[in-house]
Amino acid sequence: MKILFVFAHPEPRSLNGALHDVAIKELEALGHEVRVSDLYADGWKSEIDRADFPTLAPDARLKPAAASGEAFAGNSLTADVKAEQEKLLWADMLILQFPLWWFAMPAILKGWVDRVYAYGFAYGVGEHSETRWGDRYGEGTLAGKRAMLLVTAGGWEEHYSDRGINGPIDDLLFPINHGILYYPGYDVLPPFVAYRVDRLDEAGFAAVAERLRERMRTLGSTPPIPYRRQNGGDYLIPSMRLRPELGEPDAAGFALHLNGAGAAGQPMQNQNPPASDRTRYSV
Amino acid sequence: MKILFVFAHPEPRSLNGALHDVAIKELEALGHEVRVSDLYADGWKSEIDRADFPTLAPDARLKPAAASGEAFAGNSLTADVKAEQEKLLWADMLILQFPLWWFAMPAILKGWVDRVYAYGFAYGVGEHSETRWGDRYGEGTLAGKRAMLLVTAGGWEEHYSDRGINGPIDDLLFPINHGILYYPGYDVLPPFVAYRVDRLDEAGFAAVAERLRERMRTLGSTPPIPYRRQNGGDYLIPSMRLRPELGEPDAAGFALHLNGAGAAGQPMQNQNPPASDRTRYSV
Repeated sequence: MKILFVFAHPEPRSLNGALHDVAIKELEALGHEVRVSDLYADGWKSEIDRADFPTLAPDARLKPAAASGEAFAGNSLTADVKAEQEKLLWADMLILQFPLWWFAMPAILKGWVDRVYAYGFAYGVGEHSETRWGDRYGEGTLAGKRAMLLVTAGGWEEHYSDRGINGPIDDLLFPINHGILYYPGYDVLPPFVAYRVDRLDEAGFAAVAERLRERMRTLGSTPPIPYRRQNGGDYLIPSMRLRPELGEPDAAGFALHLNGAGAAGQPMQNQNPPASDRTRYSV
Repeated sequence: MKILFVFAHPEPRSLNGALHDVAIKELEALGHEVRVSDLYADGWKSEIDRADFPTLAPDARLKPAAASGEAFAGNSLTADVKAEQEKLLWADMLILQFPLWWFAMPAILKGWVDRVYAYGFAYGVGEHSETRWGDRYGEGTLAGKRAMLLVTAGGWEEHYSDRGINGPIDDLLFPINHGILYYPGYDVLPPFVAYRVDRLDEAGFAAVAERLRERMRTLGSTPPIPYRRQNGGDYLIPSMRLRPELGEPDAAGFALHLNGAGAAGQPMQNQNPPASDRTRYSV
């Protein structure tokens, strides 16, 4: 496989850096072709602004979506953004690696999404009709490819569990997994999450590293999170609400959008991720 | 009241800019004192990196949390970060205003959180014991103050409803409302959300503006989202899991962390937000 890492940590001598090296070494040993976008090392620009649209008239009002669509269609996006889009088209598999800061991506990685995910590339794709609402949520430019998150968290795993105070990790990551990865078409694998990373000793690191190697060995065979396809008939158009007869009667929240899901927090059907990933998606 | 806006849109001549003006005009007419951090206009730096910690030795490994804690304790954070912290301490009320890009904040605002929320200021506060797990989730540096989100979204309101394909707006905003605002102590008001903002005509804008003015008039009286306090006895320590006897048997996900909440998506008790905000928190 061709695999792209987008890496967002400012310190190579960090746990993130060490896990990054572990993953790449394993993937290359398996014969995969790996490329890396190291956002901090590359000096990635985080803010979407006028400089992203060199052909926009100086006195024109900046409408980010419209400007993005015009620049993508006219091939006038900036070179850094075009290079990332080309890497996304090249890769069979995308891995976003980052520390979870304030329950979300670091700003520099959000800025990669905001800028690279142009209108016409990652959204605003496909036709709208009585049976389709554009190509998104399982369809789109990046359909047929796989993606996953590789995340470190300082907090305890229990704090991110089904009843943990932070909220369940899979719900916290839903806006990324479903809203950023599934949206333009990726099949999204269950995330790899390492907890309490500030307190890892050598034995702890060795265990996390081995769990990560196992995930790298199974990238091609791990079943994706079974999100429902937008245009597969499960949603009403144009309200895009899940049909009333679908989902368990007491299901609510993000779990409704999993195919074959019962109430939130119950195991899903048709999947068999590694037991070492103790997320909602594992048994 | 003293009110701080943190504003994150690159174009003043945008709907966000217009709503910003509407809100401030209303607040000033009511006699409130308003200050604004206009992140794009101020050239806010988004990425947390070594430059944030001028006293860190050049060859020292950058550990963001540790470096942040040392710089906060030693009063050596950069001037831009210190100015924002002072504004947060000054304000009785914080309003984060932004367009919802990819179901999250723009990168520049996430970078404001990543950099301003220093260790010792917004986290790493308070003691750990058998009855307390630090001052967070309802306690902390910013306790006793109020906060709310003012958000615009391009998509339809139905797409963000309880069964909508994007996921419910209140769940999408939970990582911000609970994880970023409630965490350091704020009482968090229900968000103000404007939908389909790319298609607003004059009458549509007038309706949104009046709904916003009404929210500005009721900032002091609107009941906050009834999140559970961490150290109030609802959570087990140190697992920080909600006690098994709390929450309805079939409740799951983020809704568990609402006091008096039943299953996700059901109305809460003890609150009466404006009926015009058709979120989970309104009737």
